[in-house]
Amino acid sequence: MSTAGQVIRCRAAVAWEAGKPLVIEEVEVAPPQANEVRLKILYTSLCHSDVYFWEAKGQTPLFPRIYGHEAGGIVESVGEGVTDLAPGDHVLPVFTGECKECVHCKSEESNMCSLLRINTDRGVMLNDGKSRFSINGKPIYHFLGTSTFSEYTVVHVGCVAKINPLAPLEKVCVLSCGISTGLGATLNVAKPPKGSTVAVFGLGAVGLAAAEGARLSGASRIIGVDVNPKRFEEAKKFGCTEFVNPKDHNRPVQEVLAEMTDGGVDRSVECTGNVDAMISAFESVHDGWGVAVLVGVPHKDAVFKTHPMNLLNERTLKGTFFGNYKPRSDLPSLVEKYMNKELEVEKFITHQVSFSEINKAFDYMLKGEGLRCIIRMDG
Amino acid sequence: MSTAGQVIRCRAAVAWEAGKPLVIEEVEVAPPQANEVRLKILYTSLCHSDVYFWEAKGQTPLFPRIYGHEAGGIVESVGEGVTDLAPGDHVLPVFTGECKECVHCKSEESNMCSLLRINTDRGVMLNDGKSRFSINGKPIYHFLGTSTFSEYTVVHVGCVAKINPLAPLEKVCVLSCGISTGLGATLNVAKPPKGSTVAVFGLGAVGLAAAEGARLSGASRIIGVDVNPKRFEEAKKFGCTEFVNPKDHNRPVQEVLAEMTDGGVDRSVECTGNVDAMISAFESVHDGWGVAVLVGVPHKDAVFKTHPMNLLNERTLKGTFFGNYKPRSDLPSLVEKYMNKELEVEKFITHQVSFSEINKAFDYMLKGEGLRCIIRMDG
Ligand SMILES: NC(=O)c1ccc[n+]([C@@H]2O[C@H](COP(=O)([O-])OP(=O)(O)OC[C@H]3O[C@@H](n4cnc5c(N)ncnc54)[C@H](O)[C@@H]3O)[C@@H](O)[C@H]2O)c1
Ligand SMILES: NC(=O)c1ccc[n+]([C@@H]2O[C@H](COP(=O)([O-])OP(=O)(O)OC[C@H]3O[C@@H](n4cnc5c(N)ncnc54)[C@H](O)[C@@H]3O)[C@@H](O)[C@H]2O)c1
Ligand SMILES: [Zn+2]
Ligand SMILES: [Zn+2]
Ligand SMILES: [Zn+2]
Ligand SMILES: [Zn+2]
Repeated sequence: MSTAGQVIRCRAAVAWEAGKPLVIEEVEVAPPQANEVRLKILYTSLCHSDVYFWEAKGQTPLFPRIYGHEAGGIVESVGEGVTDLAPGDHVLPVFTGECKECVHCKSEESNMCSLLRINTDRGVMLNDGKSRFSINGKPIYHFLGTSTFSEYTVVHVGCVAKINPLAPLEKVCVLSCGISTGLGATLNVAKPPKGSTVAVFGLGAVGLAAAEGARLSGASRIIGVDVNPKRFEEAKKFGCTEFVNPKDHNRPVQEVLAEMTDGGVDRSVECTGNVDAMISAFESVHDGWGVAVLVGVPHKDAVFKTHPMNLLNERTLKGTFFGNYKPRSDLPSLVEKYMNKELEVEKFITHQVSFSEINKAFDYMLKGEGLRCIIRMDG
Repeated sequence: MSTAGQVIRCRAAVAWEAGKPLVIEEVEVAPPQANEVRLKILYTSLCHSDVYFWEAKGQTPLFPRIYGHEAGGIVESVGEGVTDLAPGDHVLPVFTGECKECVHCKSEESNMCSLLRINTDRGVMLNDGKSRFSINGKPIYHFLGTSTFSEYTVVHVGCVAKINPLAPLEKVCVLSCGISTGLGATLNVAKPPKGSTVAVFGLGAVGLAAAEGARLSGASRIIGVDVNPKRFEEAKKFGCTEFVNPKDHNRPVQEVLAEMTDGGVDRSVECTGNVDAMISAFESVHDGWGVAVLVGVPHKDAVFKTHPMNLLNERTLKGTFFGNYKPRSDLPSLVEKYMNKELEVEKFITHQVSFSEINKAFDYMLKGEGLRCIIRMDG
């Protein structure tokens, strides 16, 4: 019996309050409206961006809310006007979309779609400014337009990448945010020349994907920087050749890196979200040609500060969302790279929990244990 | 009778104190040491960088000092080991050098020579850590290794570009700093695509050379931004199509530009030295693809501040000295461009004074009158 057009009652992990454990609730998920699709989520994982907005320490609080944006699922039904997707399609929802019509979508350089770019403060769908989730008629807010911590969710069609149905969703779901973001930050934005030295700040899944990108680019030295020494052993699998823990030094880490590299690294990629690390990552690059790329999501009041002379000395500073990949256009081929064994995703997956244990995934991330924790929605 | 190897007594404009008129004095100029050349300066002009260090408001004071770095002259004699230059060669001294041996000189991307890059605080020659200028045995400091406000000066051979002897030095002397800097900032660093919109902050000679670069690149809109409304009429000759005076608006100029351009300019080039203008120039570029280039020399305590989200939204921030040109390698061909009428320099020259009236050149710049003032050393 088809559920299309019907309200679906299913389980979702609701965040009722900032920093409080999620609660598995029965929610009602309304049918998709125009240009929306309803997805059955099979696997989701936790990215640090979920944690920031759930903690709401440096971000605008919006509760009750259903988090989650790194996931894989299957189209359950489609709304009016949706022609690109059909029920049964295997898909990855993405926190930043691609309308294919705006000036950004038409530009070769940008993936910052005017209509569907990341919007962390909006908790409703664009079509009617309302939520598709409710409990006893009371709306529950969306997060990043994806809200994948629910067995069913409604997403704008522009935020959904259709992928090879043979790809194992429990693996490739991690390509829907962190891995693609880190990989693209290096391959598409930092673009380290062969033989260069790359520093990666923050060795979570995003940073290690950035390191992997450096390795694929033929970097000869990949220096991992993290305040969590547990990261170091793991990072070797991702091509890191050296490690620096800023806490081991009583001077700025950019000075330590400058000394290790005779003046600075050729490229740095920041994947921490900490504004001091962003500044260090920038000031760590070599004058004359160094390029620093910011990836971490900053606190809402963070200020990036540096002496303008650091720029005049011919350093370049950039930032990126989703590694500059256009989600609908580029994600299917990243999945193919995985299928062709050109890209490994298994090594990013260190934990698995069932949906009912989702708070464990938060614990792992808060403790800095492991990289990605896959949450099986059927458990 | 050759003066080689002899001390030369000649006139120089000495700055005895911060912000006080220069005094034409008789100075003694020692012969060039190893890897140095002594130049007879024929024409020099005033760049805003001279004025900042003379005012010493936001810069380290160092007095007495001989300023000047934009000039043209003839080699009088050469020191030990100098083989590239010989007496009689026509040359442009440059504030930033090119040793041709260091990692920067060997890199295609950088012109920040490890040995000879701009050093605003050093007042002595590298060879012996001493000055070549003195009055009654008391040393007078150098500025930027050039000190062209003197009939004779001693310069490191790596800071001297040998040019076509047929080029009129009273014209091409302005290529030795400002014009090349602005032109290169656009052509070599900002690289606006054809048809794009470029904002230039600061419409002095450097900024108008940046505008000229945008015109040569085929930009379709070139928006000049300056707090001095006198600049606007002149700027049209350099391709400016629109003007914004930040003082005419009671909101940040980046908002005005965003409105004029549906979200931001494609490129901006900052040529003011004012850190707020630097921030505005950066925040004026379009998200997704915009590139901002800083050229102005900042106060020594200036801090560039912006929300990291402005970077994450895929804007690029860069800076440059001397428009990324390598002085010895690239300046001769810029002079050739002038000789072939591919590059006009006359329109940058709005005033001429004789050396004895050098303080008038300072007045013009402080009042924001005209662009470059040529100082004839024979007068
Ligand atoms: N720009 C984007 O499109 C995008 C996409 C996904 C994630 N992100 C952001 O990327 C960042 C990393 O995400 P993740 O899921 O890998 O998180 P994570 O928590 O797994 O990894 C972050 C790592 O940074 C380290 N760290 C924290 N502060 C540090 C500091 N000051 N110096 C050095 N290391 C420091 C932590 O110890 C941790 O190992 C987060 O800020 C996340 O929000 C951005
Ligand atoms: N990076 C380099 O290699 C290099 C080389 C030469 C000069 N410079 C610097 O470039 C800058 C320009 O030099 P110039 O000789 O053309 O100077 P200039 O004084 O002729 O021109 C500067 C212009 O900027 C305008 N201005 C000042 N503050 C402003 C603000 N807040 N907003 C908008 N406009 C503002 C002034 O009105 C003036 O018209 C100076 O800072 C100079 O030191 C840098
Ligand atoms: Zn994420
Ligand atoms: Zn779009
Ligand atoms: Zn100058
Ligand atoms: Zn050099």
